[in-house]
Amino acid sequence: MKYLWFMIFGLLVAGCQPVAPEQGVVADPLPSWNDGAAKQAIVGFVAKVTEAGGPDFVPVSERIAVFDNDGTLWTEQPYYVQLAFAMDRVAAMASDHPEWRSQQPYRAALEKDLHGLSKSGVAGLLELIMATHSGMTTEEFTRIASAWIDTARHPRFNVRYQDLVYQPMLEVLSYLRSNGFKTFIVSGGGVEFVRPWAEQVYGIPPEQIVGSSIKTVFEVRDYGPVLVRLPEMDFLDDKEGKPVAINKHIGRRPVAAFGNSDGDLQMLEWATAGGGPRLGVIVRHTDGEREWAYDRDSHIGRLDKALDMAEDSGWTIIDMKKDWKKLFPFETE
Amino acid sequence: MKYLWFMIFGLLVAGCQPVAPEQGVVADPLPSWNDGAAKQAIVGFVAKVTEAGGPDFVPVSERIAVFDNDGTLWTEQPYYVQLAFAMDRVAAMASDHPEWRSQQPYRAALEKDLHGLSKSGVAGLLELIMATHSGMTTEEFTRIASAWIDTARHPRFNVRYQDLVYQPMLEVLSYLRSNGFKTFIVSGGGVEFVRPWAEQVYGIPPEQIVGSSIKTVFEVRDYGPVLVRLPEMDFLDDKEGKPVAINKHIGRRPVAAFGNSDGDLQMLEWATAGGGPRLGVIVRHTDGEREWAYDRDSHIGRLDKALDMAEDSGWTIIDMKKDWKKLFPFETE
Repeated sequence: MKYLWFMIFGLLVAGCQPVAPEQGVVADPLPSWNDGAAKQAIVGFVAKVTEAGGPDFVPVSERIAVFDNDGTLWTEQPYYVQLAFAMDRVAAMASDHPEWRSQQPYRAALEKDLHGLSKSGVAGLLELIMATHSGMTTEEFTRIASAWIDTARHPRFNVRYQDLVYQPMLEVLSYLRSNGFKTFIVSGGGVEFVRPWAEQVYGIPPEQIVGSSIKTVFEVRDYGPVLVRLPEMDFLDDKEGKPVAINKHIGRRPVAAFGNSDGDLQMLEWATAGGGPRLGVIVRHTDGEREWAYDRDSHIGRLDKALDMAEDSGWTIIDMKKDWKKLFPFETE
Repeated sequence: MKYLWFMIFGLLVAGCQPVAPEQGVVADPLPSWNDGAAKQAIVGFVAKVTEAGGPDFVPVSERIAVFDNDGTLWTEQPYYVQLAFAMDRVAAMASDHPEWRSQQPYRAALEKDLHGLSKSGVAGLLELIMATHSGMTTEEFTRIASAWIDTARHPRFNVRYQDLVYQPMLEVLSYLRSNGFKTFIVSGGGVEFVRPWAEQVYGIPPEQIVGSSIKTVFEVRDYGPVLVRLPEMDFLDDKEGKPVAINKHIGRRPVAAFGNSDGDLQMLEWATAGGGPRLGVIVRHTDGEREWAYDRDSHIGRLDKALDMAEDSGWTIIDMKKDWKKLFPFETE
């Protein structure tokens, strides 16, 4: 009879809880991270803000974490992925624009001449973006961007761009979410370029993607209402723009912010200056072998002032080479 | 022994499932609604989009429902709540602005002279909003708006404005959320005026509030970084602006939209023109006794073109007087 009661108790417990695959062993939530200060800072932060009754407890509704995209969640070298997209769009559209063969910045884009492109400056880049990202409905643009991201390949790694997301950062996203955080992307890139694939790749839904945008206008056509993309900037979500966009879209100050360049400086400042526990993290590109090594002198993803401010501000620096066991999901360890 | 096995089985079941308070009885999710076409349309829509394997099934990630605020979720008569706030702010700030006593639209605001105010037109109203809603940090504004909403009282009902939300709509919000919907407010009102109290009153967090906005700028002060509110419009979230804002903030087309005026027409059009099952709902103010009766000729919340379009578009009209058993949470039935 005693045995039977044990059985009953055993059945009750077994019936109510999933059996852990390795009982007594807690799986490492960040398996692609080497043990070190960066991993400790992230795990320590999560432990303290989720400790019920603890002095640093943060209610679930305030667990907002923001992530830059280019260079923080995926590779941004040898050029921003969205620039690769724009150059490919110029090539695809060139037959309708014979004048582009002799006109900058289009010629440079057609020849993938980055030096020539950089001579056109920000104005040239904006012209390229407007020519390739506007003049269609939002749904047409989503189809074009989705088709491209599903097939285009990175010039160095020869894999799809969406395979060049950082595995350790995917683990951080997932780890934060499993601890009640809402994760947001706050990108300098175009919001409608990131949204079509971010849910599948990062687990972040469209409504949690904040980014740069061009203006759209509502039109009713024969077949129904559409939003048409205009060749006009609406908002540049970079530098001082990031806290502005966070306030506009999210409406609360994040408790954790992850970036990699001076474009993320104000976002890091804004997030970490709030009261209570705060986590500011900079992904530093130190691995010239597995990826790229660049900081103060880079034209893409320059990390200079934010690096100077990191120590005084208590921001954590991820040293990609030392802290990450693997960079990309496709690598075998 | 047979009895014992029944006991074991009973324990297993009891231990794994919460016991329903009234077994066999499914509670009505919309108890403040009279049975009728409007209630049936809402319940029928939810039933079909949540039916796993059914022809109209909508995955949880696409269950986006948008709600106008003024006149749809709470009362907007005899004037928009935010205008009441602006008038009270003018009164609170008047000692620093003696010139306001003789200058329009401030004088009209001080005297709560709505006729005088309306003579200043949209330009006058904007001036009033800018004078009272800018020049402080976002956090200061949140404090001011929160303090006001916690104490100010409605001129007719003599209760706080947040007590004048519609009980039947609170039930719809909650019913949709319990069926996997994400609920958003898409308001012509200022986003930072709605956010401070919407989570507590509607259960909608700040990041799911879309609204009109004024520009803000990032500044680093002695005590840290702030966002300062400028006297300049950023975005007017009304009419054609609503689908634009939905696309910008949410990034997907809602499957359900609730509004009450011509300001919601394009939002209703945009949401209900998508493929698959769609729900468009108009709250019609027909109850002059319990609230107000107004539509085509009203200056506030005019419902004219959207009413004409409703039938052809298959939108559901809520007749407040007939469809709602009670309007406000404080009413006894």
